[in-house]
Amino acid sequence: MTFELRAIGHVESVLRAGEDVPKQADEGAPDAWLALDPALAAACADLAAGDELVVVTWLHEADRSTQVVHPRSDPTRPPTGVFSTRSPARPNPLGLHTVRVLAVHGTRVHVDALEAFDGTPVVDLKPVLTARR
Amino acid sequence: MTFELRAIGHVESVLRAGEDVPKQADEGAPDAWLALDPALAAACADLAAGDELVVVTWLHEADRSTQVVHPRSDPTRPPTGVFSTRSPARPNPLGLHTVRVLAVHGTRVHVDALEAFDGTPVVDLKPVLTARR
Repeated sequence: MTFELRAIGHVESVLRAGEDVPKQADEGAPDAWLALDPALAAACADLAAGDELVVVTWLHEADRSTQVVHPRSDPTRPPTGVFSTRSPARPNPLGLHTVRVLAVHGTRVHVDALEAFDGTPVVDLKPVLTARR
Repeated sequence: MTFELRAIGHVESVLRAGEDVPKQADEGAPDAWLALDPALAAACADLAAGDELVVVTWLHEADRSTQVVHPRSDPTRPPTGVFSTRSPARPNPLGLHTVRVLAVHGTRVHVDALEAFDGTPVVDLKPVLTARR
């Protein structure tokens, strides 16, 4: 069963290649812009500075056939099934990134530390839930 | 720009229709099974009871053309752009669900409170990050 995912925009970042991307945002990722489709202005209308968002990206350069990876953070760890890792290599290379909104200019959204490189497609934005479980 | 998302499995739940689904897991969602593709056994190999996971679903019955919704939780609130809500109605109807793994039997994963109904396609599983930001 397959579904058609459509880019809602893309990341604008000083990060220029997959190799430059910190594995997690707290490892030094820069701020970035989400350049969203102007046709989605109504969907973006309530985004505001200070919001905490989950940005869902499509890691379009990832290898979708990989099922097992060697964790980059500790090469001595054994190979690990991708569903137990945040590796971009996985059957559906979706990335989840928790960011804070710094500014909103129409459908351009400035966010803090984002571990995704320039040109990465964005496929969804969701508010972080305050009471999670 | 579009991408092909492939189901990695589906939800098995006593919840039978969209109308039955609690809006968030802490509003009384039942436990459920993730019936994953046996061809992805290697990707699942390190899942274990006790793991906290983000289950990414494809809310296949959602209206993808909706940009503004009236929050169900409080009908007096004004219409809100979907990127500021967790509504299933959105350009790409991805669902994010934080669950705890109760048991793993091969590629069948038993999880606690999951707010998704029977048959919902699953598209990714990721570990919850312990040190988020």
